[in-house]
Amino acid sequence: APKKLLILPGDGIGPEIMNEVRRIMDWMAQARGIRFDVSDDLVGGASLAVHGQPITQEVIDAARAADAVLFGSVGDPKWASAGFDRRPEIAILKLRQELGLFANLRPAKVFDSLADASTLKPDVVRGLDIMIVRETVGGIYFGNPRGIETLPDGTRRGINTEVYTTPEIERVARVAFELARKRDNRVCSVEKCNVMESGLLWKEVVTDLHAREYPDVQLTHMLADNCAMQLVRNPRQFDVIVTGNLFGDLLSDLASMLTGSLGMLPSATLGAKGEDGRMPALYEPIHGSAPDIAGQGKANPLAQILSFAMLLRYSFDMQEDAALIEQAVSNVLDRGLRTPDIMSAGRTEVNTAGMGAAVVEELARL
Amino acid sequence: APKKLLILPGDGIGPEIMNEVRRIMDWMAQARGIRFDVSDDLVGGASLAVHGQPITQEVIDAARAADAVLFGSVGDPKWASAGFDRRPEIAILKLRQELGLFANLRPAKVFDSLADASTLKPDVVRGLDIMIVRETVGGIYFGNPRGIETLPDGTRRGINTEVYTTPEIERVARVAFELARKRDNRVCSVEKCNVMESGLLWKEVVTDLHAREYPDVQLTHMLADNCAMQLVRNPRQFDVIVTGNLFGDLLSDLASMLTGSLGMLPSATLGAKGEDGRMPALYEPIHGSAPDIAGQGKANPLAQILSFAMLLRYSFDMQEDAALIEQAVSNVLDRGLRTPDIMSAGRTEVNTAGMGAAVVEELARL
Ligand SMILES: CC(C)[C@H](C(=O)O)[C@@H](O)C(=O)O
Ligand SMILES: CC(C)[C@H](C(=O)O)[C@@H](O)C(=O)O
Repeated sequence: APKKLLILPGDGIGPEIMNEVRRIMDWMAQARGIRFDVSDDLVGGASLAVHGQPITQEVIDAARAADAVLFGSVGDPKWASAGFDRRPEIAILKLRQELGLFANLRPAKVFDSLADASTLKPDVVRGLDIMIVRETVGGIYFGNPRGIETLPDGTRRGINTEVYTTPEIERVARVAFELARKRDNRVCSVEKCNVMESGLLWKEVVTDLHAREYPDVQLTHMLADNCAMQLVRNPRQFDVIVTGNLFGDLLSDLASMLTGSLGMLPSATLGAKGEDGRMPALYEPIHGSAPDIAGQGKANPLAQILSFAMLLRYSFDMQEDAALIEQAVSNVLDRGLRTPDIMSAGRTEVNTAGMGAAVVEELARL
Repeated sequence: APKKLLILPGDGIGPEIMNEVRRIMDWMAQARGIRFDVSDDLVGGASLAVHGQPITQEVIDAARAADAVLFGSVGDPKWASAGFDRRPEIAILKLRQELGLFANLRPAKVFDSLADASTLKPDVVRGLDIMIVRETVGGIYFGNPRGIETLPDGTRRGINTEVYTTPEIERVARVAFELARKRDNRVCSVEKCNVMESGLLWKEVVTDLHAREYPDVQLTHMLADNCAMQLVRNPRQFDVIVTGNLFGDLLSDLASMLTGSLGMLPSATLGAKGEDGRMPALYEPIHGSAPDIAGQGKANPLAQILSFAMLLRYSFDMQEDAALIEQAVSNVLDRGLRTPDIMSAGRTEVNTAGMGAAVVEELARL
């Protein structure tokens, strides 16, 4: 039976960049006879508008039943002041939690032909290839107690709780060690063990797991503040970084920006393999919904296309097809095609559809 | 009566860079007749070695009695595994808490003659002048419950609590607004209000205070992950950034590294003015104790010297003397003198004492 793929385009530029992935799927069907069982649904502001909530139980169930979820992006200024429980972001937080998507894989990779796009000196970022593994269902995002309370004297108190347990730390560290073995075999574990006990436990658990199961991988530890500095000072020192939810949020965005081209970067969020061998997984570009340019054909579809390639690689074990798409993207860039976000002097500007078409053309040629 | 100054050189390069400040104080006494009532004490590893604790009650009392504290840096590999309660860092955490030093001022400024030192393109950082105001006695650093517990089934749980109250947020925001009025009149308040209620309260309180007392200042809000990105993408968009303890820790270090020369950056941590009009305050370079180069005369004393200038400005209201020292430092750099950390082709390398002496010479000339 064909693999079940749930597509959630979301808000803003989500739908239009997702169309370019559909174009690639069409090509795969025609040229290579590969078919998926695709269904489509609403999330984020798009779901709020129809259902009054950022994600419905049906969509969560459909995501659970799918072999993989391809997500666009959520966020719509219309809902900016909709209140804490009706934010479009709830869609992604709920999917992470309900499907147990605990490991967010965020590659920060510089394409040779885009090394100049970075605000960092080309010498510092050329060849950059970091993988950040961020824990995504624990930590301060989900810990209790949480909320805002009013004390008898009228003072208000906002509270959130950072909690990590041994198994939560182990499973995400395991993902990092496994990835490192297929890369440069180095993991840097990041926390604030000098001020936070949750970070102290994090460090101990990663150290123990390393000694027990991954002694062949090189493990180092770094404080989160120092890591923020080192990513700017000399980002190429890193191979795989593993860290908690909150630090991962900041550090992965920082690392992305080092590449200078957010429109290029995919991500995967993976859960645990079930007894049936299936692994829940969601793939999405790291950029947002960019409402300011939505519907204008200006959006760069490459992060969404590369998210689809990651999906083929990690969820469907279609290494060859994934590599083919990545190669096609790289070639298109080498040929000088650029959407407005990565345009520079002497290159050829194309729109969203033009970029998608160019990737398909390139695929046909490879 | 002369102002009381407590000097805490600390570990590693702390003592040797502090000596260069003493040289400047000597010059001030001789040339300008300005005298301070100076005392000296131990903190960090230096205190652990003698007293078995990173800071003694006497030193805390002396700090409280002083008009200002000039701090070097703490941290010594000898105590790296000394256990959570005997870390050298405890010294600085305790001073912050016991003296109520709630507002950490972290300028990230690029000296024209050092614009090339950054890993960012000179075009992106030239003229950079950001002030980060970080809350330092609240948030997840000090919230309860905290600790590591073992559950009945053997699982261990690490817990920390982020807590912010209305008055804690207001007082630090007030510092940011006041500073902005003396600068470019813009404040950007940073939190994660999309996932953390403590951040939601933070945003509300800053917004209300702004409307009530600082409507003339331009206020914007930014999510912490986006702020990490924007600091890399276009750091000059910021004037004053105000944020909580943990985000401030990462973002201020990130901002420092944009300048490419940590050895140049001072900081101040200020408390509330008491009824006697005195304000507890501590000044320190943002760099660490650099044990690898300690005692070799390689350390750059300029961050420590500029911390002393900040002290003169914020604690002793000696604007003119502060400006004089800052000008002397700038001139020395323009003359091409460089310690090894900021050395580049065509410049003149000097050691710690050489740099201190050059600043004094320059002062004499101004
Ligand atoms: C949308 C938001 C809740 C989310 C987060 O903070 O985790 C986003 O910033 C991300 O990194 O995926
Ligand atoms: C020494 C340490 C506790 C401290 C912190 O995390 O606050 C340091 O990183 C800083 O920024 O002053």
